[in-house]
Amino acid sequence: MTDETVRRRGRPRRTEAGSADTRDRILAAAREEFSERGYEKTSVRGIAKTAGVDPALVHHYFGTKEQVFQAAVETVFAPALSAPDVIFEGPDDEIGERFARFLFGVWENPVTRTPLLAVLRSAFTNEIAAAVFRRLIAGQLLRRVAGRLGLPDAELRAELAAAQLVGVAVMRYVIKLEPLASTDVEVIVKRVAPVVQGHLTGP
Amino acid sequence: MTDETVRRRGRPRRTEAGSADTRDRILAAAREEFSERGYEKTSVRGIAKTAGVDPALVHHYFGTKEQVFQAAVETVFAPALSAPDVIFEGPDDEIGERFARFLFGVWENPVTRTPLLAVLRSAFTNEIAAAVFRRLIAGQLLRRVAGRLGLPDAELRAELAAAQLVGVAVMRYVIKLEPLASTDVEVIVKRVAPVVQGHLTGP
Repeated sequence: MTDETVRRRGRPRRTEAGSADTRDRILAAAREEFSERGYEKTSVRGIAKTAGVDPALVHHYFGTKEQVFQAAVETVFAPALSAPDVIFEGPDDEIGERFARFLFGVWENPVTRTPLLAVLRSAFTNEIAAAVFRRLIAGQLLRRVAGRLGLPDAELRAELAAAQLVGVAVMRYVIKLEPLASTDVEVIVKRVAPVVQGHLTGP
Repeated sequence: MTDETVRRRGRPRRTEAGSADTRDRILAAAREEFSERGYEKTSVRGIAKTAGVDPALVHHYFGTKEQVFQAAVETVFAPALSAPDVIFEGPDDEIGERFARFLFGVWENPVTRTPLLAVLRSAFTNEIAAAVFRRLIAGQLLRRVAGRLGLPDAELRAELAAAQLVGVAVMRYVIKLEPLASTDVEVIVKRVAPVVQGHLTGP
């Protein structure tokens, strides 16, 4: 992976160019390692090797393996975490469709799907990875959606809506159930959007 | 695990008592190994050791590791695979509630939850395990539900309904998102049942 791609997908450039490059290179290596090996089999040493730096530098920039994982996950989820702005731009009775359309956009794009799958898989099989996923998804994306809704049970509503979308993603992209896996995404959005809408703003 | 519990949860008793016991003991050991280690780290040798038999016997009764896994998964899913009968007993407009109630019954019971989690986790991280899950869930449970519905797109409908239920299960029991993880199961059934109903029999 070149510095160019790293920068485009990674964090904003720092004032001190050298350290920003190193940081980005470590993050790109971490995403690669976690994707390929999963959380448990990935080591700080392995990430350092892939990034071409000393393991001490990984610790210096990020700390523990859990903290590297969290930083790598954050960069993967950065677009999703800024989603509420997109989701709430437009009529209230189309929130469900915009939410569904946004998430399937992320899933249908192979560039964003691969790291997302890696994160999901790690979260399903490792308690520390699950905790990171929980803090980021619940603590940031869903709580922000819930905050905008302002309804009683808004957090539970946002989680049930997310559960429908995550469930479809798991069945379609991980388990690859047919006919779901090869059904046109527009057909799925059409069936799933009213469910998401109902969870978020229904009775 | 005693022979008694194995028999209660396992396959029906065979005519030849000795071989049925051995078979059940191997299956119980397989469930235990797959639960603890996941698909990839489990070996036929390890299953044989836990069962106290020669590895050749495991191969004799079941064949390859994939086939042992499939047999172990089948016994875990045996109650779920016979679910359509329960789900379709009663008024048509309460199918969603019966489907949701049945699945949460399986999930809320720690005895059935643990092996189910192991199977789900294996299916998320291993392609062979995913294929087994696919054949059993899609090929048996969902296709039977779809067959009874007799609607156009019945298979897709059954899969989207299952996606809502699997999504909630993943968020509640695997990722343990709050407030979803500690919300009373009756509250969840009440919110999820109309969604399942809508997928199965709605417009």
